Amino acid sequence: MEQLIQQIKKKQSLLCVGLDTDRNKIPPHLLKEEDPLFAFNKAIIEATHSFTVAYKPNTAFYEAHGEAGWRALKKTIDYLNTHHPDIFTIADAKRGDIGNTSTMYAKAFFEEMAFDSVTVAPYMGRDSVEPFLAFEHKYAILLALTSNEGASDFQTQKLTEEELYKKVLQTSLTWRNSDRLMYVVGATKAEFLKEIRKIVPHQFLLVPGVGAQGGSLEDVCQYGLNDRYGLLINSSRGIIYASQGEDFAEVAREKAQELQREMEKLLSTVKVK
Amino acid sequence: MEQLIQQIKKKQSLLCVGLDTDRNKIPPHLLKEEDPLFAFNKAIIEATHSFTVAYKPNTAFYEAHGEAGWRALKKTIDYLNTHHPDIFTIADAKRGDIGNTSTMYAKAFFEEMAFDSVTVAPYMGRDSVEPFLAFEHKYAILLALTSNEGASDFQTQKLTEEELYKKVLQTSLTWRNSDRLMYVVGATKAEFLKEIRKIVPHQFLLVPGVGAQGGSLEDVCQYGLNDRYGLLINSSRGIIYASQGEDFAEVAREKAQELQREMEKLLSTVKVK
Repeated sequence: MEQLIQQIKKKQSLLCVGLDTDRNKIPPHLLKEEDPLFAFNKAIIEATHSFTVAYKPNTAFYEAHGEAGWRALKKTIDYLNTHHPDIFTIADAKRGDIGNTSTMYAKAFFEEMAFDSVTVAPYMGRDSVEPFLAFEHKYAILLALTSNEGASDFQTQKLTEEELYKKVLQTSLTWRNSDRLMYVVGATKAEFLKEIRKIVPHQFLLVPGVGAQGGSLEDVCQYGLNDRYGLLINSSRGIIYASQGEDFAEVAREKAQELQREMEKLLSTVKVK
Repeated sequence: MEQLIQQIKKKQSLLCVGLDTDRNKIPPHLLKEEDPLFAFNKAIIEATHSFTVAYKPNTAFYEAHGEAGWRALKKTIDYLNTHHPDIFTIADAKRGDIGNTSTMYAKAFFEEMAFDSVTVAPYMGRDSVEPFLAFEHKYAILLALTSNEGASDFQTQKLTEEELYKKVLQTSLTWRNSDRLMYVVGATKAEFLKEIRKIVPHQFLLVPGVGAQGGSLEDVCQYGLNDRYGLLINSSRGIIYASQGEDFAEVAREKAQELQREMEKLLSTVKVK
């Protein structure tokens, strides 16, 4: 956590790059590589790491290719840990199951692959999340309020006293090792951030949806930043698929740098403890 | 679906065997096999298939072994589809993400590996589930009311008018291709089954938690059966880890047969359309 805060300070950036690496969307010339997904990720990482404090591969894109995809994911996290050990890593896996099974998922992402964190779905409650929190120096990023349309199906439904997502936030604070929790909060719901910060003032929020999914960086920073920064802002498609040509990495770098510069401006107002 | 109903009729069984195959729990003599997880699964499948209408590997146990685990999972589903194509298969993966990402997960489990169904978490709502329902002759099994303690954290919380899990059930019926939905309902909540059957009278329920997790088979059948059977009852540890000796497959067979016999009695009262 301190390392993440140092990275944000040093790079003046909250940028998380989403490695949603889709075989059908990467530049065609990479398909002749032995491992196109990894070749693409490596190039994107090298192009963007100066402006980036976190990388977030979404596991779905790797699982869709079975064993080979899983190998590409493993090579990606190994590459990050070897060449950029200071950068925070997120397995965007949205896992969650009964206790012993969640422990197996935690082992998959914290041990078999050495990610710093994993995204977790809250529906099954305390004993489905706590196993992820049992690993020192590892974090679980809980789905709280997501950026998709379906978020209104359940997350913003009112319980007797409050909306479900607020109950999720409040309840999660009572869980063991809750200091290892972060939260997914959709950027397109910036107006909710004020409410969310009342409940979880100190935690990091992972905000997807700046870039291709829309969402205002200014709003997110205005209501989301705290005195330890407390924000990771993800962009996937807006960076990694900005060009499909041989210049894809260079263009990705430019897009990452653009975002970092906007972030730098917005960060200039923050006083970090 | 018709095939599943035929299997239940023919075998007089609702039994789903959970292949939660843990390297640390399988008989030690299998560890010298080239692929111990697959060798174990193959032996369990051969020992139990006469009494079993569905197999349900939980993906966590395979992911914990990375690429090799993923390979064992793939070999397991291929083996089932080759040797026992009539048996229903469930990837117990509890996935769910925004639309295009859920599509990738669906491809992972319906195409890359040819499972008949996958378990899905509802928290992200409609557009996170519908992509799984876009595949013909494939099913999504939605977490509704789970059997773990944490189920009371959110699932049984009251919304303004009803509990969250009821809202999940009701809302899911409005989703596109909702005829491809089944639901996870925890066996230890048999008293809830009556309520659940009011909302989803026709769908199949996957009931975990008979066996090692407790839960009364009688109650589940009394309140859960419908005129197309409508029940799959899972047992994992109670069957697959009943013995750790070289006789593990034989003992698994006995345990599966015991459960099937109890089921047969309870099924004798059902009139199927």
